[in-house]
Amino acid sequence: MRIANLSGRLVLISADGSAALDVEQASSGRFGPDPQSVYDVWEEFAAWAADTDASGGKAFAATDLEAPVPAPSQVLAIGLNYSEHAAESGFSVPEQPTVMFTKWVSCLSGPVTQVQLPPDGKTDWEVELVAVIGTRAHRIGPEQAWDHVAGLTVGQDLSERITQTAGPSPQFSLGKSLPGFGPTGPWIVTPDELDNRDDLEIGCSINGEQMQKGRTRDLIFSVPALISALSQKLPLLPGDLLFTGTPAGVGAGRTPQRFLRPGDELVSYISGIGELRQRFVGA
Amino acid sequence: MRIANLSGRLVLISADGSAALDVEQASSGRFGPDPQSVYDVWEEFAAWAADTDASGGKAFAATDLEAPVPAPSQVLAIGLNYSEHAAESGFSVPEQPTVMFTKWVSCLSGPVTQVQLPPDGKTDWEVELVAVIGTRAHRIGPEQAWDHVAGLTVGQDLSERITQTAGPSPQFSLGKSLPGFGPTGPWIVTPDELDNRDDLEIGCSINGEQMQKGRTRDLIFSVPALISALSQKLPLLPGDLLFTGTPAGVGAGRTPQRFLRPGDELVSYISGIGELRQRFVGA
Repeated sequence: MRIANLSGRLVLISADGSAALDVEQASSGRFGPDPQSVYDVWEEFAAWAADTDASGGKAFAATDLEAPVPAPSQVLAIGLNYSEHAAESGFSVPEQPTVMFTKWVSCLSGPVTQVQLPPDGKTDWEVELVAVIGTRAHRIGPEQAWDHVAGLTVGQDLSERITQTAGPSPQFSLGKSLPGFGPTGPWIVTPDELDNRDDLEIGCSINGEQMQKGRTRDLIFSVPALISALSQKLPLLPGDLLFTGTPAGVGAGRTPQRFLRPGDELVSYISGIGELRQRFVGA
Repeated sequence: MRIANLSGRLVLISADGSAALDVEQASSGRFGPDPQSVYDVWEEFAAWAADTDASGGKAFAATDLEAPVPAPSQVLAIGLNYSEHAAESGFSVPEQPTVMFTKWVSCLSGPVTQVQLPPDGKTDWEVELVAVIGTRAHRIGPEQAWDHVAGLTVGQDLSERITQTAGPSPQFSLGKSLPGFGPTGPWIVTPDELDNRDDLEIGCSINGEQMQKGRTRDLIFSVPALISALSQKLPLLPGDLLFTGTPAGVGAGRTPQRFLRPGDELVSYISGIGELRQRFVGA
């Protein structure tokens, strides 16, 4: 199933992506309308939603979709999780998950947005697979990890490189948390909907020109490996977001380097999930 | 005034720290009981609380105090914000706020706790002044910043140094977010209660031996300077926490180095606010 946030209300999206069923109405008030608090009762909700047909919902505008998980308790993000991206960033392949940072929640947005570029910045793109935690995960093994995942969505880890790398020790979180720098969506797709949850095509284009293209089977640390490793350190909570890293093709890794400019349109996608569409404007 | 979280309920604490007045009861349901959602209506609450006498409240046990701000949307923390601590860490004095990271909220705890030390870790202490945001702050100047602060509290930025510094690029957040690694409290004190909100004694001791002792006037970037600088990048939201950095005297900066051991008792304090008390146990 597909779960979305339509103008602040929790909805189910039909398999063809054309109709949205209001969860609070369809469940007679048992679930919803808040898109975040559904993770407090994820298993009950998922069982109900699996038996509910969303095809009778209403047509909607993609621009009315908001961040599918709008207020996570924790956003965890990892760097250097595809070999070719580690190489283009000047690092060797890490032996364990590394460069863990956050995107502060005020940067999260929906799938179709306009983003203001900071003046004098170098704003780069990083399409990422994002896992949404469904049930609390603490000190679990990788073989249990998928059981704790509510679903997957597309994320853009937009990154202002000057701020990100300023100072004596890189401060990834700050350069990656400007307003609008965390587009997510268009919806959460439960893993059972996907032909192979461990091998999805992921990419993005600017003004129609492909910039990144990869496959999630090439993640150095897979979704279950990441969840297991992180859960040894801290509990992952229902409704948390995990940004899993970006494949090669970012602007900072190109020769010459290229960054986003006013007027650019960035389209980010993952096969079987959907796409994000960001238009950039000047300050 | 002093605002605390007593067994999950918002309370006002009397000036002598001995009595707790239940806010929901005292306000006839206008505010409370949730200690977090009060920041959604901070200005109205602060006006009401300023006119309310907490001395008629009830006695309470310090061990029943929980994290005064239990579920902030954003936790922002800064490194290297006292000159002598930057030096003991091997860095020069930064020219702008740097090493911004998060402590993920699952690590937050109350003022009097038992903390499990990770096996094979090097767990260090960092007492810090923590500012709680009262009203949204975005792109504000330092002269306006105190107006956006609800109050101040004591924080311990407990840090497992091996995890913190692992990998090709330091990942401060992960090593600082283990369960129980974010004690805060004992309560929020509004700045008007303090003789000088910009100059407070801050320190900590282990088993009675003083380890850190400093004054917040020695912050390289003061509370208003930090809030102003961060607010240029992202909006600070009501109820957010800002950990402002630690003075000299951490274990990693000593010769020989010293880290926390099972049985140690760490007492952290800020003059005019109060103290935290952590007892450490083995894994």
